[in-house]
Amino acid sequence: MAKNRTRTFVIALGGNCILRAKERGTVEEQYRNLRRTAEELVGLLSSGSRIVITHGNGPQVGNLLLASEMAEAMVPPLPLDICGAATEGFIGYMIQNTLANALRQAGGPYKITTVVSQVVVDANDPAFENPSKPIGRFYSESEAERLRREKGWHIIEDSARGYRRVVASPLPVSIQQARIIKSMLDAGEIVVAVGGGGIPVVREKNRNLRGVEAVVDKDYASARLAIEIDADVLFILTAVEYVYRDFATPQQKALPDLTVAEAKRLLAEGHFGRGSMEPKIGAAIMFLEETDPAWERDVIITVPETALGALEGRTGTRVTR
Amino acid sequence: MAKNRTRTFVIALGGNCILRAKERGTVEEQYRNLRRTAEELVGLLSSGSRIVITHGNGPQVGNLLLASEMAEAMVPPLPLDICGAATEGFIGYMIQNTLANALRQAGGPYKITTVVSQVVVDANDPAFENPSKPIGRFYSESEAERLRREKGWHIIEDSARGYRRVVASPLPVSIQQARIIKSMLDAGEIVVAVGGGGIPVVREKNRNLRGVEAVVDKDYASARLAIEIDADVLFILTAVEYVYRDFATPQQKALPDLTVAEAKRLLAEGHFGRGSMEPKIGAAIMFLEETDPAWERDVIITVPETALGALEGRTGTRVTR
Repeated sequence: MAKNRTRTFVIALGGNCILRAKERGTVEEQYRNLRRTAEELVGLLSSGSRIVITHGNGPQVGNLLLASEMAEAMVPPLPLDICGAATEGFIGYMIQNTLANALRQAGGPYKITTVVSQVVVDANDPAFENPSKPIGRFYSESEAERLRREKGWHIIEDSARGYRRVVASPLPVSIQQARIIKSMLDAGEIVVAVGGGGIPVVREKNRNLRGVEAVVDKDYASARLAIEIDADVLFILTAVEYVYRDFATPQQKALPDLTVAEAKRLLAEGHFGRGSMEPKIGAAIMFLEETDPAWERDVIITVPETALGALEGRTGTRVTR
Repeated sequence: MAKNRTRTFVIALGGNCILRAKERGTVEEQYRNLRRTAEELVGLLSSGSRIVITHGNGPQVGNLLLASEMAEAMVPPLPLDICGAATEGFIGYMIQNTLANALRQAGGPYKITTVVSQVVVDANDPAFENPSKPIGRFYSESEAERLRREKGWHIIEDSARGYRRVVASPLPVSIQQARIIKSMLDAGEIVVAVGGGGIPVVREKNRNLRGVEAVVDKDYASARLAIEIDADVLFILTAVEYVYRDFATPQQKALPDLTVAEAKRLLAEGHFGRGSMEPKIGAAIMFLEETDPAWERDVIITVPETALGALEGRTGTRVTR
């Protein structure tokens, strides 16, 4: 690690930090989980580093889409980019207030602000030809038929549970708010950004930006932001303490250290779950390959309670060049 | 106006800038209105000043509460502070993207970012003893009775149209994000803040902040922010070109210039509509009385299309000390 340089951390909170499996998604549940996460992270947040926090929005945006759909007779429906922006607002508020309270009680600096972040994606990203990210609720076959016809949605049969809307999940090209986030860090603020992967926008011929109904993976968006603000460490906090090879088999083996080359090989061999560990490893590789090699960079993948221990090399998975 | 000082403007957008009377509240309507507002404001926004934009959220938060209520059987309901934070996210996104596009086409600087703003209110504010701000839809008498019992809501009979929930509308004590907003302005960003009046929070005994189900008037929140960031001009943009005395009577008379003393006298005489011009005049007085008198300060009340003309003294109402 470079000396004499205040380190910049991007900390991506996994879904588990805000809502856990089987919870319904009440505000009380979310605050309780966030308070626990805040306790677990208070040491890391108080470490004197420059800090950006990012987060997912899967269950929250699903609930908002569902409410919007159920109320459609009375209230004009909200498209996906608008729902995403709404979750950036309210999840950001819950995070900034809960973490600020925990930091205030711990006696540390506690200035935290959420920025509503737009993420530029390429309108020619192949993901738009092949929408694959399921969002919202399950439909019957006849509902699916009607929604395809009336709204032009892509709807696929999803296992045995019914039909589900899928949208594109393009890669992030640039973070529209990266410059101001960097200057907020310079001013000593902890910044909550690219919530839910940020609001995907495409650039039109006249250079204007326009929102699209797509979902940017939050780990890739976090990596892109980490590259643009020249972060030193990208934390990807999730539900497992380590990355494993042969996960959930008798041969399962924790991987405390991974190089980019090893990560690529294991990725190609299919060791990492699609939609779970795979995008995290992909985001780690993106960050390590696209940042200035003049400084050491690390990606740490672990659970929130061991994030600080992992930074100190005592646990968790560290991915390096 | 002080020379040799880049002026700071707080521009409060009235409801009309985003949704007009009789519109349902579709996203298309909101973008169309915002594009028109952007065209009208592009001269003012390109004037080389430091700019904060604030806005209301009445119809949007009403629709969100209604959707949340209609979906209650399937999706946990969202309390008012969470709905407010959600509207800060999505209205902020629509504003930042639409204005940035207009400024980009005009060749000006176009960096705009929304911050999710919390507004500290006093838990002992008398408004909490006397909730008076109607929110959400109308209920029947029996629904009102049930909601009072089940949720502890304050519900009043609202004219002949039924029963309606009312919440407190406390005065803003301080804007939690004021310091970082000021430093974002220093970095050349246009900032969208205190949307819908900001998210009201009270300070607990241990100094932690906690969200409350209340609504801060957006003009008062704008004035409070303008005081904290030491703004030079507070624009309150609304549906009328001037403030009037004897409004909507045969004696109606436009008021191009008002001092604080005159404004107070006319306010006491009841010339300004409750819930419409009254809080704007109250906010103007607050701003002029609480800012450093070493510089000239102005409050301009007019429609968006004459905001620049009003700054140059050609139209609109100017309130001064």
